[in-house]
Amino acid sequence: MNPIEIAVVGYGYWGPNLVRNFHETEGARMAVCCDLDPQRLARAHRRFPGVECTSDYDAVLRNPAIAAVAIATPVSAHFAMARRALEAGKHVLVEKPLTMRVDHAEELVALAEQKGLVLMVDHVFLYSPAVRKMKELVETGHLGRLFFIDSVRINLGLFQHDVNVVWDLAPHDLSIVDHLIGRLPKSLSAFGATHAGSDIEDVAYLNLDYGDGLIANFHVNWLSPVKVRHIIVGGSKQSLIYNDLETSEKVKVYNRGIDVGADSDKKHQLLISYRAGDVWSPNLPQEEPLNRLAADFVRCIREGSRPLADGSSGLRIVRILDAAQRSIKAQGGRIVL
Amino acid sequence: MNPIEIAVVGYGYWGPNLVRNFHETEGARMAVCCDLDPQRLARAHRRFPGVECTSDYDAVLRNPAIAAVAIATPVSAHFAMARRALEAGKHVLVEKPLTMRVDHAEELVALAEQKGLVLMVDHVFLYSPAVRKMKELVETGHLGRLFFIDSVRINLGLFQHDVNVVWDLAPHDLSIVDHLIGRLPKSLSAFGATHAGSDIEDVAYLNLDYGDGLIANFHVNWLSPVKVRHIIVGGSKQSLIYNDLETSEKVKVYNRGIDVGADSDKKHQLLISYRAGDVWSPNLPQEEPLNRLAADFVRCIREGSRPLADGSSGLRIVRILDAAQRSIKAQGGRIVL
Amino acid sequence: MNPIEIAVVGYGYWGPNLVRNFHETEGARMAVCCDLDPQRLARAHRRFPGVECTSDYDAVLRNPAIAAVAIATPVSAHFAMARRALEAGKHVLVEKPLTMRVDHAEELVALAEQKGLVLMVDHVFLYSPAVRKMKELVETGHLGRLFFIDSVRINLGLFQHDVNVVWDLAPHDLSIVDHLIGRLPKSLSAFGATHAGSDIEDVAYLNLDYGDGLIANFHVNWLSPVKVRHIIVGGSKQSLIYNDLETSEKVKVYNRGIDVGADSDKKHQLLISYRAGDVWSPNLPQEEPLNRLAADFVRCIREGSRPLADGSSGLRIVRILDAAQRSIKAQGGRIVL
Amino acid sequence: MNPIEIAVVGYGYWGPNLVRNFHETEGARMAVCCDLDPQRLARAHRRFPGVECTSDYDAVLRNPAIAAVAIATPVSAHFAMARRALEAGKHVLVEKPLTMRVDHAEELVALAEQKGLVLMVDHVFLYSPAVRKMKELVETGHLGRLFFIDSVRINLGLFQHDVNVVWDLAPHDLSIVDHLIGRLPKSLSAFGATHAGSDIEDVAYLNLDYGDGLIANFHVNWLSPVKVRHIIVGGSKQSLIYNDLETSEKVKVYNRGIDVGADSDKKHQLLISYRAGDVWSPNLPQEEPLNRLAADFVRCIREGSRPLADGSSGLRIVRILDAAQRSIKAQGGRIVL
Repeated sequence: MNPIEIAVVGYGYWGPNLVRNFHETEGARMAVCCDLDPQRLARAHRRFPGVECTSDYDAVLRNPAIAAVAIATPVSAHFAMARRALEAGKHVLVEKPLTMRVDHAEELVALAEQKGLVLMVDHVFLYSPAVRKMKELVETGHLGRLFFIDSVRINLGLFQHDVNVVWDLAPHDLSIVDHLIGRLPKSLSAFGATHAGSDIEDVAYLNLDYGDGLIANFHVNWLSPVKVRHIIVGGSKQSLIYNDLETSEKVKVYNRGIDVGADSDKKHQLLISYRAGDVWSPNLPQEEPLNRLAADFVRCIREGSRPLADGSSGLRIVRILDAAQRSIKAQGGRIVL
Repeated sequence: MNPIEIAVVGYGYWGPNLVRNFHETEGARMAVCCDLDPQRLARAHRRFPGVECTSDYDAVLRNPAIAAVAIATPVSAHFAMARRALEAGKHVLVEKPLTMRVDHAEELVALAEQKGLVLMVDHVFLYSPAVRKMKELVETGHLGRLFFIDSVRINLGLFQHDVNVVWDLAPHDLSIVDHLIGRLPKSLSAFGATHAGSDIEDVAYLNLDYGDGLIANFHVNWLSPVKVRHIIVGGSKQSLIYNDLETSEKVKVYNRGIDVGADSDKKHQLLISYRAGDVWSPNLPQEEPLNRLAADFVRCIREGSRPLADGSSGLRIVRILDAAQRSIKAQGGRIVL
Repeated sequence: MNPIEIAVVGYGYWGPNLVRNFHETEGARMAVCCDLDPQRLARAHRRFPGVECTSDYDAVLRNPAIAAVAIATPVSAHFAMARRALEAGKHVLVEKPLTMRVDHAEELVALAEQKGLVLMVDHVFLYSPAVRKMKELVETGHLGRLFFIDSVRINLGLFQHDVNVVWDLAPHDLSIVDHLIGRLPKSLSAFGATHAGSDIEDVAYLNLDYGDGLIANFHVNWLSPVKVRHIIVGGSKQSLIYNDLETSEKVKVYNRGIDVGADSDKKHQLLISYRAGDVWSPNLPQEEPLNRLAADFVRCIREGSRPLADGSSGLRIVRILDAAQRSIKAQGGRIVL
Repeated sequence: MNPIEIAVVGYGYWGPNLVRNFHETEGARMAVCCDLDPQRLARAHRRFPGVECTSDYDAVLRNPAIAAVAIATPVSAHFAMARRALEAGKHVLVEKPLTMRVDHAEELVALAEQKGLVLMVDHVFLYSPAVRKMKELVETGHLGRLFFIDSVRINLGLFQHDVNVVWDLAPHDLSIVDHLIGRLPKSLSAFGATHAGSDIEDVAYLNLDYGDGLIANFHVNWLSPVKVRHIIVGGSKQSLIYNDLETSEKVKVYNRGIDVGADSDKKHQLLISYRAGDVWSPNLPQEEPLNRLAADFVRCIREGSRPLADGSSGLRIVRILDAAQRSIKAQGGRIVL
């Protein structure tokens, strides 16, 4: 069986991780690395001497041996490059967020569908042991009905030049929550502020309403003095906390909550009692999520199947990001999705 | 000099703390404890045999020896009891929040003004060593221009029957932020959800816009599996984190931030550099804030001066709470203050 | 049934806790508080107006209504006061450590035995929910064979004048470990250093050998810049960590360890594999251990039974402390017990 | 100026880090990688295609282009391989610990001295920003007189086959403390226990007496359910804690301690007061210590100077390890150094 030959486009911050992981992916051949910057290409060449380095994206697309293209350029270039790759018959993996506009994302999804090609977004957290465990706990009903989700991803820098903190950081958490809940929120409000003299927000809050009492709040921030990355999922039976900075207990499940009983005497007053139970932290394997994502991409290309982080999930996240952007500009005005 | 005689009304959750602290306050005499529940009165009597116990609030108000009344009843009774006390010529300390309605708070402030009486709200955190240090750091310009404030006060329970989680928990953080900033926000949005079968919100987020790029976000929650109590204040020069659950380093100042420079070559692009400096945690005295608050109340009565947590600050907090309540009912609609 | 009348002797650091707890103990009457210092007596009187206050210990011992005496004086007075109380026919609870000399502890144990009186030591941690859970986990074999115990109890101050840091802090941890293991160590070595210009050690390490590969190490320190209170119990099946400063997860059980297998190929080399399993933190009730200890004292007096923290356990701890003291003076020389 | 050509011997756990760092060291050429295991060599070749791979150590030593050899083999091979390299006129960097016997370490130091060659030990922590800051704080007198050092380096596995936990883990902390204090301890005691069916200790405690009231205790452990890596340095003026697992505040300085005053009234009693001051965490650069160590090795070869982690420091650490080993076998018997 011939290996799937892969080209990685963009050797900046994330590209080297893609090259390294496709290099190690069974059934794939990390064939070409493409970047316009000669210094980056030189760096790629030193590190991966067997990988062909080029600045000619056209040539990559014309090369019939290349089956798939992974795009890790600045966000603003995602759409054009992904469309050209799909048009050239290549399977495509795009760095998150998929695009900067909803119609662009829709067009890519439709194009991949029509051409029968794999379109995947690099929502890498979906492949992490922690998120897989969270998904399992939610799906098997361990948490009961979901009450609230509180997500915080804050740290100092790195400021982006073409996107604000929402487009930069929120895709991670939005894709995780989208994966857990499996549907779009009904509406959202978002707030942001800019401080660096540009019109790019560096602090923002998103508030998503999923209906049925489930709200999800996201705090993303480039100005925080400390790094925090956690998601609390509050449920009717149990609650969990995912702390991505924790090395040995990333996911903790709390058998704590409230029980609501009827009060026979006072008809209009509820009896609320508290459960304070055990805390349990499941052991998680030590794996690099990007490794699994690369393997899923290759497998889907080979089998013609749909990856976990497919174009549709990428489109859903772009829809939320776009609505958040509009809400921020409207000073928190509610956007129905 | 005769001691100021104090009556404490309401011997439930917070009342015993008031009785204990006025008992130990120089220049005060903890004279009467008033509650309708005989069991509570019996408990008060066992613990403080020298304090007169009564269920007759009228008698307390008629007693000319009593100079001041401290009200620690359920929130819904604050207004009526405080008004009667002021009308009877007593100085008044009211548990937070001051009242449940803005017009009620306005009336109390006006009445106290007109009668020349001290009206104080139990915004006890203003008297804590941590908040006093934060106030000093903000006032002396150590943080520079304020960029954002992020406040989290979450834990499991205790559900209240007459107020929601916003009215229960947010007054603490709102009063701290009000104290630091010294003005009302320009507008706010708030979101909440209910899960215990009643219409009382148990999870809520408030987003306050103070103008000039300063936003403040508050997360209050009765359903969280863990207890968190922190406030991050991000500034242009330095940032600080106040973690109220930390015993030895409650306030940490981070000499970290961004510097924005002009880019001579690219006119439209800003050069942002990061400062990663030292972290410093000032030593704070070990004090009980309520002790200081009680002393301030007594001092203001004696000197005819204005307490740190005066009626106006109580009114400002009620304004914010009221607006938050309306915003929640309007699903996050923006309320201009 | 008449209540057991209790006298508490010594109203300094710990005495008030004893008075408060016996005050609330069913079946007991907190009758007399005895101290030589009039200021302390005045404080006791203000706080507990119903308790008789006296500086006359003889009168207490002569009083036939008093059934039991709880001694919370400086350590150097324990022996003489406890002996006189036992001779006067009183049941006795002594603050830890029981005495400063082994022969004194032996004499008290023998005297109580001969007189048929309860002799109890205030090893209060034995009554805490955390230690009771640890005892259960060890006894039911959840940890397997015990490999090592590592105990740390360090903080800044409070220097004692009559005992060093070993006699001051180690009794807590030694009594916990004694309770878990149920036997004296075979031998020990101890090291200490003095820095405050006196000959009283303020930093010390104790190393106890229990045989069968089980060693226990104790670090006690009055000079540490931070407060740490933990015990690690390493076992062949699971290990646990007891962190007394943690509020919600005081005991954590780690399903981690090594498995030793035979290596068929290389006879002389062992195959060691690692288990990295779940972490589990059992929910513990919120209780004050001293409350339970007081109840156990009263119950044992009434029933003529033996308390958990009986004179023998107090004697075992004094034996270890005495041996540690001798080892320190001999610069770590091994002492066989 | 020609680059210094380096051969790395041993491509197991640590070797790849040496190859990578010498690869990036200015003035060095990472020339040859030597290992007996063909699989490891293949791995090295894939990762570093420009480095010559060989299993012939003799050929490496005969190669006149090679100026220096870095030895990362199992400890038992250190001495023989390092001696042969020095005899062949190569500068030598040896993985820690330098050798397994004191006389072997002495011989290497003498041989390097006689041949005028650089002999360096891979005490990599001496080059870390945290330890450099600690050294500066100690040397400039910020801590005052040193009172105690408490070091903990514990985690689950990896069991070594040729050395016990003392020889495996303690060299790190011993070399740091040796660097801070700059002299051998006067004496030591050590305790260990074995649990994996072999005679190799997996838990051990070392207690070093440096005289003048300064004691240092080291806990090393392969069986701990959690990973801990800290060093507390207690001083008369300030104390510091180095927590190597902390990402943003690795070194914290506590302005806390005791002050000893004369008591005019009671001649024989000391007045001890406590200082509870600020906590300060200096910002540390983000650097890889091994990078600096490699650069120091190359610089010393070129300039004929002495590295920070020279053979003598390696010898001092072997002396302590050897004494600890003998003390463990003598059940904690005190060894004078």
